[in-house]
Amino acid sequence: MKQEKLPEPYRPLDAGSLQSYLASLPGVATLLGGDPCAWSIDEVGDGNLNLVFKVRGVSGGVAVKQALPYVRLVGESWPLPLSRSHYEYLALTEQGRLVPDLVPEIFHHDESLAVIVMELLEPHIILRRGMIEARRYESFAEHISTFMARTLYFTSDMALRADRKKALIGSFAGNTALCKITEDLIFTEPYMIAANNRWTSPHLDDLAAEFRDDNEIKGAVSRLKLKFMSSPEALIHGDLHTGSVMVTAADTRVIDPEFAFMGPMGFDVGAMIGNFLLNYFAQEGHQDRPGARNEYREWVLQTTVQMWSEFERKFLDLWRCNPMGDAFPRELFADTASEPQLSAERSRYMRNLFIDTLGFAAAKMIRRILGLAHNIDFEWIKDHTVRATCEARALRLARHMMVEAASFDSIAAVTDSARAMREWRPKFS
Amino acid sequence: MKQEKLPEPYRPLDAGSLQSYLASLPGVATLLGGDPCAWSIDEVGDGNLNLVFKVRGVSGGVAVKQALPYVRLVGESWPLPLSRSHYEYLALTEQGRLVPDLVPEIFHHDESLAVIVMELLEPHIILRRGMIEARRYESFAEHISTFMARTLYFTSDMALRADRKKALIGSFAGNTALCKITEDLIFTEPYMIAANNRWTSPHLDDLAAEFRDDNEIKGAVSRLKLKFMSSPEALIHGDLHTGSVMVTAADTRVIDPEFAFMGPMGFDVGAMIGNFLLNYFAQEGHQDRPGARNEYREWVLQTTVQMWSEFERKFLDLWRCNPMGDAFPRELFADTASEPQLSAERSRYMRNLFIDTLGFAAAKMIRRILGLAHNIDFEWIKDHTVRATCEARALRLARHMMVEAASFDSIAAVTDSARAMREWRPKFS
Repeated sequence: MKQEKLPEPYRPLDAGSLQSYLASLPGVATLLGGDPCAWSIDEVGDGNLNLVFKVRGVSGGVAVKQALPYVRLVGESWPLPLSRSHYEYLALTEQGRLVPDLVPEIFHHDESLAVIVMELLEPHIILRRGMIEARRYESFAEHISTFMARTLYFTSDMALRADRKKALIGSFAGNTALCKITEDLIFTEPYMIAANNRWTSPHLDDLAAEFRDDNEIKGAVSRLKLKFMSSPEALIHGDLHTGSVMVTAADTRVIDPEFAFMGPMGFDVGAMIGNFLLNYFAQEGHQDRPGARNEYREWVLQTTVQMWSEFERKFLDLWRCNPMGDAFPRELFADTASEPQLSAERSRYMRNLFIDTLGFAAAKMIRRILGLAHNIDFEWIKDHTVRATCEARALRLARHMMVEAASFDSIAAVTDSARAMREWRPKFS
Repeated sequence: MKQEKLPEPYRPLDAGSLQSYLASLPGVATLLGGDPCAWSIDEVGDGNLNLVFKVRGVSGGVAVKQALPYVRLVGESWPLPLSRSHYEYLALTEQGRLVPDLVPEIFHHDESLAVIVMELLEPHIILRRGMIEARRYESFAEHISTFMARTLYFTSDMALRADRKKALIGSFAGNTALCKITEDLIFTEPYMIAANNRWTSPHLDDLAAEFRDDNEIKGAVSRLKLKFMSSPEALIHGDLHTGSVMVTAADTRVIDPEFAFMGPMGFDVGAMIGNFLLNYFAQEGHQDRPGARNEYREWVLQTTVQMWSEFERKFLDLWRCNPMGDAFPRELFADTASEPQLSAERSRYMRNLFIDTLGFAAAKMIRRILGLAHNIDFEWIKDHTVRATCEARALRLARHMMVEAASFDSIAAVTDSARAMREWRPKFS
């Protein structure tokens, strides 16, 4: 990869330089309040890609995210452009307009420093951690379905005039390096021998080899990859897993949209559903006694059903009420006689989106078990045989979802298959 | 529509100002040769949108195309941005790299004047005129299938790395005004009451009303419109009908790609096939005695079959020999065991492209009979009952192709349906 030439004023911030930087921003300084020397600044350092600071003053706090010119997790040998901060800010701005209560408020963006200063979310925790601890978030399905329905619908051809849609496509067309990570790590490497891949070994060695030799799945994942690269349906978050959501019992905020671009809607919806299914299968590894997670596990599946159903209902409602776009234009379906046809077109659209969603969900599940980046849902299971058992079940369901997506007639059919898959006791050599 | 602010040095050229302008370009002046005062300059004026000059000197000639800030056919009341000249030049540059023998050579481009100076094609004529005169072009299918296969394949995800593909999408994302013409005039207005529409009246009044009330076709054309707006599969010409091709018996040049953008491949292939089918149905109106055009009409259908078959064969050959792109990546299908799967994926891709092609072909046929812009194939038929008969047959086949595209298992099945449709004697009230 080519080394990016860094913009002149760019330098990675530390606690000292961040303090003077924030003190120079009048709005932020007022928000934090008091003497800048008294601000507490902690680098929380749990990002794979970026620096993240929590800053607290006498009046309030902010979170500061700064992109590094390389992948933090790997180091300078894996360069990654700072421009991702620009795309994250662009996406946060669009989302802030469409779902202001479901994203952090943005206070400042500095393109040359690749810095975003935003609302400090407290006492929020990462949804994935909450789910590993079997916490229930009764409003989450309601919130995330609103996030997905509104951000996807209002950036689609059904809501936008064609020129505005093409302008959005152009705005995000430069976010190629982040898209390339997805293209390689999700849609390609898990299905071949690649240095980045890892899995629970030796338990899953045979299964990993089966996936690499599975022609049907290589065909299916390649069609999904092509769809990812060539379907600017809407502004997608691009990394909408349970680690990109911060929650309390009552509040939900989606963060980290640096992978955002104009892509296929099913990639976002599938990411969320795939990650819920992963958590479902992982529960067996986190129970302190047999059966202890039975009820919670059911909550996970019920919430999965609710996420899709509510997303579908809200998306259709938005479509019915806001047909301002150039696709399925209202002037063409203005008379009552054409209403049933438009209704049938909407159903057909949602059915295709559902099939895309299952395929993308499956791709997200497989990459977390056979590829580079794994989920703590499984990683935190200490007993490797238990972990591999959970992972094997997830893999087998995912294969079915990807290769035979059209055989599922509803989201309940998917969760039923997940339940049935727990009966399977894989044998490891 | 907003009036575009014209760039400072822009002014429409006339013979006088064009002469001094060309004299100021050393390469062009040398090519023309001799005293600029001796150059002959003719405005040929047959463009719907632009000024076109033919310039001849003692050594050679050039054609000069200049965009006007409005639609020439309509006047200043329909503004159209000069930037289309920039996109035309971009497209000609890409095409010149991929199929240098099948496009005019470009000598000069001036963005602020919206001028392109190019090779003067002589003794070429517009293919559509040749076909109305029943001239055979025995190399045309060979040439146009090469044009389509190479320009579409080499700008697709199968040939390009993802970053280069996204850069192309970004480069053409601004050509919104020209896309909007297609979106409105092809995919929307012919199916509703619109001031721009016209048809052979009163003969086709009932049929036009049937199309406006036809829910299935409104659904189908809306899905095609969405595909047009949201499928950047490849760099398409965007207006690839028989009026955009200049020919001699041995030579073929595709001109006028100002509608170019990253769109669905089937739109280009369908444009060509749809226009051949229109010409097929129009032949009955141009014969000087019954049966005089029987053989030529068969040539038109045979050439239609050959265009698709050769396009498909060449596209697949290019795919097999040049899998440098990020879609269906070669590293995933490197072993012999996965070759049948990749082959099946290619067949599936071509089948989907064939179905898209028939839908887009149908849309192009219908708009030329019920919409704003008509073809001289039909317009030059003086007997309106004969003309309407030809048009009604084309409309009926087009409806079938659009609504039931998947029922055609081959291009020969389409041309067979065209033959059969000539048996139909529509009755006009």
